[in-house]
Amino acid sequence: MAGSVYGKIFKISTWGESHGDTVGVVADGVPAGLPLCEEDIQKQLDRRKPGQSEFTTARNESDRVRIMSGVFEGVTTGTPVAMMVENADHHSADYSAIKDIYRPGHADLTFDRKYGFRDYRGGGRSSGRETIGRVAAGAIALKILAELGISVEAYTYSIGDITLSRDSVDINEKYNNPLFMPDSQAAKKAADYIKELKEKGDSAGGIIECVIKGVKPGIGEPVFDKLDASLAKAIFSIGAVKGFEMGAGFKAAVMRGSENNDGFTAEDGEIKKTANNSGGVLGGMSDGSDIVFRAAVKPTPSVSCPQRTVTVGGEETDINIKGRHDPVIIPRAVVVVESMAAITLTDLLFEDLTSRMDYIKEYYKH
Amino acid sequence: MAGSVYGKIFKISTWGESHGDTVGVVADGVPAGLPLCEEDIQKQLDRRKPGQSEFTTARNESDRVRIMSGVFEGVTTGTPVAMMVENADHHSADYSAIKDIYRPGHADLTFDRKYGFRDYRGGGRSSGRETIGRVAAGAIALKILAELGISVEAYTYSIGDITLSRDSVDINEKYNNPLFMPDSQAAKKAADYIKELKEKGDSAGGIIECVIKGVKPGIGEPVFDKLDASLAKAIFSIGAVKGFEMGAGFKAAVMRGSENNDGFTAEDGEIKKTANNSGGVLGGMSDGSDIVFRAAVKPTPSVSCPQRTVTVGGEETDINIKGRHDPVIIPRAVVVVESMAAITLTDLLFEDLTSRMDYIKEYYKH
Amino acid sequence: MAGSVYGKIFKISTWGESHGDTVGVVADGVPAGLPLCEEDIQKQLDRRKPGQSEFTTARNESDRVRIMSGVFEGVTTGTPVAMMVENADHHSADYSAIKDIYRPGHADLTFDRKYGFRDYRGGGRSSGRETIGRVAAGAIALKILAELGISVEAYTYSIGDITLSRDSVDINEKYNNPLFMPDSQAAKKAADYIKELKEKGDSAGGIIECVIKGVKPGIGEPVFDKLDASLAKAIFSIGAVKGFEMGAGFKAAVMRGSENNDGFTAEDGEIKKTANNSGGVLGGMSDGSDIVFRAAVKPTPSVSCPQRTVTVGGEETDINIKGRHDPVIIPRAVVVVESMAAITLTDLLFEDLTSRMDYIKEYYKH
Amino acid sequence: MAGSVYGKIFKISTWGESHGDTVGVVADGVPAGLPLCEEDIQKQLDRRKPGQSEFTTARNESDRVRIMSGVFEGVTTGTPVAMMVENADHHSADYSAIKDIYRPGHADLTFDRKYGFRDYRGGGRSSGRETIGRVAAGAIALKILAELGISVEAYTYSIGDITLSRDSVDINEKYNNPLFMPDSQAAKKAADYIKELKEKGDSAGGIIECVIKGVKPGIGEPVFDKLDASLAKAIFSIGAVKGFEMGAGFKAAVMRGSENNDGFTAEDGEIKKTANNSGGVLGGMSDGSDIVFRAAVKPTPSVSCPQRTVTVGGEETDINIKGRHDPVIIPRAVVVVESMAAITLTDLLFEDLTSRMDYIKEYYKH
Repeated sequence: MAGSVYGKIFKISTWGESHGDTVGVVADGVPAGLPLCEEDIQKQLDRRKPGQSEFTTARNESDRVRIMSGVFEGVTTGTPVAMMVENADHHSADYSAIKDIYRPGHADLTFDRKYGFRDYRGGGRSSGRETIGRVAAGAIALKILAELGISVEAYTYSIGDITLSRDSVDINEKYNNPLFMPDSQAAKKAADYIKELKEKGDSAGGIIECVIKGVKPGIGEPVFDKLDASLAKAIFSIGAVKGFEMGAGFKAAVMRGSENNDGFTAEDGEIKKTANNSGGVLGGMSDGSDIVFRAAVKPTPSVSCPQRTVTVGGEETDINIKGRHDPVIIPRAVVVVESMAAITLTDLLFEDLTSRMDYIKEYYKH
Repeated sequence: MAGSVYGKIFKISTWGESHGDTVGVVADGVPAGLPLCEEDIQKQLDRRKPGQSEFTTARNESDRVRIMSGVFEGVTTGTPVAMMVENADHHSADYSAIKDIYRPGHADLTFDRKYGFRDYRGGGRSSGRETIGRVAAGAIALKILAELGISVEAYTYSIGDITLSRDSVDINEKYNNPLFMPDSQAAKKAADYIKELKEKGDSAGGIIECVIKGVKPGIGEPVFDKLDASLAKAIFSIGAVKGFEMGAGFKAAVMRGSENNDGFTAEDGEIKKTANNSGGVLGGMSDGSDIVFRAAVKPTPSVSCPQRTVTVGGEETDINIKGRHDPVIIPRAVVVVESMAAITLTDLLFEDLTSRMDYIKEYYKH
Repeated sequence: MAGSVYGKIFKISTWGESHGDTVGVVADGVPAGLPLCEEDIQKQLDRRKPGQSEFTTARNESDRVRIMSGVFEGVTTGTPVAMMVENADHHSADYSAIKDIYRPGHADLTFDRKYGFRDYRGGGRSSGRETIGRVAAGAIALKILAELGISVEAYTYSIGDITLSRDSVDINEKYNNPLFMPDSQAAKKAADYIKELKEKGDSAGGIIECVIKGVKPGIGEPVFDKLDASLAKAIFSIGAVKGFEMGAGFKAAVMRGSENNDGFTAEDGEIKKTANNSGGVLGGMSDGSDIVFRAAVKPTPSVSCPQRTVTVGGEETDINIKGRHDPVIIPRAVVVVESMAAITLTDLLFEDLTSRMDYIKEYYKH
Repeated sequence: MAGSVYGKIFKISTWGESHGDTVGVVADGVPAGLPLCEEDIQKQLDRRKPGQSEFTTARNESDRVRIMSGVFEGVTTGTPVAMMVENADHHSADYSAIKDIYRPGHADLTFDRKYGFRDYRGGGRSSGRETIGRVAAGAIALKILAELGISVEAYTYSIGDITLSRDSVDINEKYNNPLFMPDSQAAKKAADYIKELKEKGDSAGGIIECVIKGVKPGIGEPVFDKLDASLAKAIFSIGAVKGFEMGAGFKAAVMRGSENNDGFTAEDGEIKKTANNSGGVLGGMSDGSDIVFRAAVKPTPSVSCPQRTVTVGGEETDINIKGRHDPVIIPRAVVVVESMAAITLTDLLFEDLTSRMDYIKEYYKH
């Protein structure tokens, strides 16, 4: 398998499993001259850290990042930036009970079948801890994009069937509730819903929305490496994502062409669109509007109510999953969505640098 | 831009635009010893050919494929298979009127901004003709999969809000109607709906569903190159796709964990699942169930009713698109979805060959 | 096998075998806005065409190139440029005699072992005709480099033990003799040597030298994708190449450090080197001097004097190879060396565009 | 830049610079089921460790490796194996003197020009310490190959003009002298030569030879990803390598075809060659013979005798390099050559697994 490397020019290589020694990432293709310190990375990691609220597992990890290369006197040098977090709180004992059982909704069976055996401690490489490398590399991508005036903002769009109301969205509200939902009323209802499920040992799913502002037109490649297709893969590679849509998304399927097409207008010489059903992408390239997508996230598969399953040996049995588990994945996945979107956009933006002879000539004069 | 190459081991490189000289593909990584003739390719291309029904453009292309390399005495040799179709029916004259106008819902503006100018004849590289190379390469992938007992079957799941009824699905019905809808009643309603829109110069969208049978557990890589993430990119790279979901998809977001998890049972020593909300993928790897996904396709952007837009120079204007256009993209996209799914699965299956030392040792004994 | 795609950003995919239908290439990643016509390609292909002198096979191929995509109104559009040459003169009959015998020095045995069988007609994919795609794509790369003021010039450095004398090198002389040797006296001696070998049914090898001028410092990546390492692969991927060296090359192994190091001087504020033992590359990056490398090419393996070999079935036998063969590969390989060097340099130059935040910011302002 | 990732299926990503925090590597694509412990890695690292003899720098690094992921209960799991070594002995003070001067033969100037500035401490990413990641990943590749019966053995072939005599080669002698030269007499002469140079503050170059045994025919891809071309890049990517040749190498250029071709014979039904001028590769694929190549290594550029150079500001000056430097790079590079050869061969061997439909069908039955 060679599936832990991502990107073409801005290329990341992640490692680590739930109960291994460390988790981390090497980011290759980071341009020279970007100011970077551990605090830039840490503040993003803290957003996915466990134990922040009653909705996240109590696993006690400080998750302090260490930059191991590629930065000299506070600035990136152009060489690979390796970043690492120690796995402090293993608690391997919690998991021995499930060593010989396939947990429904988890990758236990598939790992066993692919590799002939598995690291049964806490999900191994399929654990949420795998995303630490993504968030660390994403922090760099977000900094690069910020230098170009591009912002990437994800938030909780729905939990179960509680969806934020477009009328009451206030992006500043996002950090005021542990669900990162930019609508205080919806957030309150969602919190009640999750508490109710948690008491029953059950879990909730939901939808994350992400908006990217400031992307100039033309980013993304017209055929296979379309901006939307690349984002689809990036976001779908996050565990538990089951659906992805751009702009109007699945609603576009029931619209008429005359209704779904975004018209163009001219405002002071600048071309604008009259709507954004496209989600900011036409023909796989950014169209100058906000880039908008949504990801459906399934409910946490670790539920403590009894489930029907089988043992590794093929005998039927029941399972009650114990241990520390989030009743909902969404809040901690918000920063992972931003990270993967930023990494993907950075890579396509870098690819675009070589799209025109006139740009290339200008660069070569340096 | 280097966005016209797709795949890692089974790697395809497509070329060609709507009104260029030819369209085609080079498939590198085709294993030696696969029986292959032009008819294998042609029958797939015929499924996406224009002029097949009242729902597809009347463009008169015979679209005869020519295999240009990689086959010797009816069998693949292991070297690249290049395949090409001549662009016979250009009709460039039809398009000169839109040379200086940005068509809503099309990639005119984005091509101009990315490259500084565009080939304005019929959509250029963003034309549906770009998919000829995908279907030709897909025909090879489908043959490889068939040799392993794997089938890939896509069909129209909905047109507008007319959805096939699970109770009346009959896969044999798929080829009995020009919409490739495996439900004769739904197909009739959908046909009426499209005709109505066509008369108004408008267009319809819809959803394509695809089912892959016979995939052994463990195909797909656990982190970035997950089977579902790879399919998401593959399908989203097809023009006009705006949404993608696996198994329960967006519905998983509103389910509880205990409800969404597929339980395991044992039948005669074989492990089965009690449901397939996962869509056949757990942790990014095939779980032995049918692989099931859906793609939302937007309505054809070329509508002949008047639309508000701007000229290349930035002046506001109205546009009425003439010429030959499909009132719905779905029927011709069905075979493209199968092709991209097959190419993606083949590539991941090839990658899986190196996942275990015991398999590698066995291979090396040859 | 996925070994017929080359490059990361400027990416080429070649196809075709000696006696197949066509040979060709798709070049993906060609920037928009480069003037390009078939004549640009044709003049390079003509340099490798057979039948040009007594030292090249008499195979009668007109080798007319056809650009099949990616060019609109005489300028590249940014989409893939596909180019193709028909295989007109097959003469398959010539080869049936060697169907069941392994020719020494050829890839007959290795193809059979790798794929289980082979296309025995004229070397198949290992034929020199495979290089047509490289030269066609190389012509584009050379045009891109020329626009930046970079020239790539290869020539025959030696044939057998006849080496050009540094004192009498005159680059204008290169095209005055069929051996492309920039030294009229050496060229004459070499011609006599080849004629002598040809009469005996034998063949000669030699060395090609290549000089690249105008490359700014810093092109090439410091670790695996060094400029010299990338050139080494590019040149070694040309059939019959057995050695590669940069600058002083193998001679550096016998020099002392104080002798091999190129000193630096300053001339009118510009930093120069006092020598060029490095061959223009330090730490894998261009150092601003001429880039200089040499490739050792083995003698044509097709000789008509009797050779000891075995049949496919494993029986010992003698073989006398008939048919049309070059008594020396060098003259036709000169343009292939230039092509592969240009493709490689273009790709690394494109990669360098993303090396610095300040360049990226400047680009993003467009 | 994205030049610190190497390989296609067995893919390594290295990080770290001379005076940074750590150096390391992530190896992605390691098959599951390979026994692996830190000692396997350590014994290889110890072969490149400084301070082993009078011919290597006295830098005091214990270079203890830490496996950070991908191994569970002593066996690889199929997930990425990350390995790291702390940079204990920085001695940054040694280097401040050269902060503003370009050392001849080093990458100081090229780093500055590429990135706009450089990490001037000890060569940064161009330091020999960069190879620690290569050797660590190489140790895994060597273990994989060993499981298949393949050995990779490199040794010192020459120092200056002292070359091992084919008559007195004894591979067991290799570890009996600090130069890893399998010829005790040549080793003694070479040691004297180096001591003499060292006293003068000068340095020596040389040639490393590598022999790979046990490779079945057909490994390597016929066009760009030839086995020999891939090895050429791998070996040339090691700092200080200036030449590479396979089998007869540069000597093939002066041989006649009848002389250079290796004849085939049959011994007990098995096909053998009568010579090995090819170096074990025909048409880019292994031919079943030993794979033999040589790499020319330039003398250490750090010499303490005075050299002419310029400052960063462009003023001419003299430089006397102090600090701890190897008078010859060869002995420590031997294990790096083995490592890069093993990584490259493993990757191509993995690629070959998908070359034939019959192999693929057999695998799929598991």
